[in-house]
Amino acid sequence: MLEDKNPNPVNDISTLGEFGLINHLTENIKLQNKSSKLGVGDDAAVLEFKSKQTLVTTDMLVEGVHFDLLYTPFKHLGYKAVVVNLSDIYAMNGTPTQITVSLAVSNRISVEALEELYEGMLLACEIYGVDLIGGDTTSSLSGLIISITAIGEADKKEVVTRKGAKENDLICVSGDLGGAFMGLQLLEREKKVYNEAPTVQPDFDGHDYVLERQLKPEPRKDVIDMFKELGIQPTAMIDVSDGLSSDLTHICKQSKVGCTIYENKIPIDFTVVNLAAEMNLDPTVCALNGGEDYELLFTIALDDYNKIKDSKRVAVIGHITGVEGAYQIVDKAEVVHKLVAQGWDAISKQ
Amino acid sequence: MLEDKNPNPVNDISTLGEFGLINHLTENIKLQNKSSKLGVGDDAAVLEFKSKQTLVTTDMLVEGVHFDLLYTPFKHLGYKAVVVNLSDIYAMNGTPTQITVSLAVSNRISVEALEELYEGMLLACEIYGVDLIGGDTTSSLSGLIISITAIGEADKKEVVTRKGAKENDLICVSGDLGGAFMGLQLLEREKKVYNEAPTVQPDFDGHDYVLERQLKPEPRKDVIDMFKELGIQPTAMIDVSDGLSSDLTHICKQSKVGCTIYENKIPIDFTVVNLAAEMNLDPTVCALNGGEDYELLFTIALDDYNKIKDSKRVAVIGHITGVEGAYQIVDKAEVVHKLVAQGWDAISKQ
Repeated sequence: MLEDKNPNPVNDISTLGEFGLINHLTENIKLQNKSSKLGVGDDAAVLEFKSKQTLVTTDMLVEGVHFDLLYTPFKHLGYKAVVVNLSDIYAMNGTPTQITVSLAVSNRISVEALEELYEGMLLACEIYGVDLIGGDTTSSLSGLIISITAIGEADKKEVVTRKGAKENDLICVSGDLGGAFMGLQLLEREKKVYNEAPTVQPDFDGHDYVLERQLKPEPRKDVIDMFKELGIQPTAMIDVSDGLSSDLTHICKQSKVGCTIYENKIPIDFTVVNLAAEMNLDPTVCALNGGEDYELLFTIALDDYNKIKDSKRVAVIGHITGVEGAYQIVDKAEVVHKLVAQGWDAISKQ
Repeated sequence: MLEDKNPNPVNDISTLGEFGLINHLTENIKLQNKSSKLGVGDDAAVLEFKSKQTLVTTDMLVEGVHFDLLYTPFKHLGYKAVVVNLSDIYAMNGTPTQITVSLAVSNRISVEALEELYEGMLLACEIYGVDLIGGDTTSSLSGLIISITAIGEADKKEVVTRKGAKENDLICVSGDLGGAFMGLQLLEREKKVYNEAPTVQPDFDGHDYVLERQLKPEPRKDVIDMFKELGIQPTAMIDVSDGLSSDLTHICKQSKVGCTIYENKIPIDFTVVNLAAEMNLDPTVCALNGGEDYELLFTIALDDYNKIKDSKRVAVIGHITGVEGAYQIVDKAEVVHKLVAQGWDAISKQ
């Protein structure tokens, strides 16, 4: 651990008695996993995976960049901060088992807010069977920063990377896409209204689904469980964090293949379609480039089609081609377009 | 991974092409460890520890809190950011094997600075045989934030926690103490001079040792290797990050024992003694409360004394007592004082 060099720690943090609150919040954590041998409170946590492979992923969330505290409840923020990491472990076809949490906290954040943040993180841990085994808490001179590392396990033969997609494999995606992006657009619209006229109540009526997609996403553990039940081993997999076009491109690049997907096969919720129309946005563009849906995008061998064809969790949206670097989308009028990876920044400029 | 919500990414970062530089800097990393199966570039890294236990530790470094870019070279900062994490793995009697690195970077940081930061991190990785296997890079609205998670391995029977110290065990510490703190005092003194008169050159003559202790500490891998050579299994261990008094208290509290240490046994380098005198500081107080020395503080059974007594790496500074909660220091005049854990903030106010 590194000591704080700031000789004048901010008041709200120093009243916690060198982060006594965090110690208090973490000291009663009961370890759930067999692989968790020692949790919070020593120089390092001790884990034991035996014959399993260990998966490690990390994500950093910065206030003002990844989240806006004006419309993000702390409990939701804690939940989402954990979920985005668990999603990366599921995307390897693994089971998340532990997380570490590092926080940098400014003096604007109250003790109650930190309690809510931890409540959300521990709720996600409980639901997904994950142990919080360590971390670091320090002061920040500006905003809130959350850095989480998730650890998971998988049998060697079960691990799915981005590299294994082959010609004729089917491209599948779980759930539906574009909702998280529309939720963000809605929140940003109402924020603008609020900034111009703070007494006007925000208009979120009928938009629960997109708000939940943005503020409280769920990782697709159920899809990983389904693979085991149906005896499916995906050939490549990634979670949809950047947007379908960008994430599919990652799989194709690393697998050295091409792809063709069909616009009319892309699963989009009707509330997303309606809200997109209201905001003069093309719902397909939102699904392709929106990101943050945390659905699983994966490829399976053609032979596995029968196993998956009746699943309501998953849609087949296209297939892998042998033409490396050729990424195509066929629109509803059956016109073929080049699929361009744009990601969030690009779409925000439209 | 979570997408940036900031629709106007800062220029210097966007010119890197969605952190193309970081990808470039990390894509040529060669994995050194057998346990590293898959590194940077997928949803998660894949590791394999087989019969070994896995150790996990994490630390977050915040600009303005943990480091001051006015006097911290980026290469040193990268090196130190890795070292403070490796030190925690060694303090479990383990061998560090992998790290993940998350960075939040403001637009004040140039591409060259990031290159130097990575150079320092990769140098530490190379020297200590560690693989950089993943991470996350994002923009920051204010300073630079570095969050590193280190992973290591150890045989189950070799792991040393803070809990095993027993009555009559000897208290030992590697190297010498107080140097990093004196280095910081010196840097802060010269910063003050610089702020008052920017044309005056800083006066660092003859102070290489304390500056290196502060800016480029080394973790004590050699001490862990020595334990194996001499057949020593410490009963408890911690790295000295908060200061001797605070860290020894951690061991005693978790082991439910007391301790007595002797002022005249505490190893302090003569350059530290001289500089402390020049600054009207008590060198023993600096050693007790200074922190950031990253030496190893450990206890061994009395029976192991003969194995360690000739080692130049280690000093025996006292012993564990059976009186839980009684922490004592015997001064040079043989007067017994209560040992109070203060840590860095306290001493800075003296």
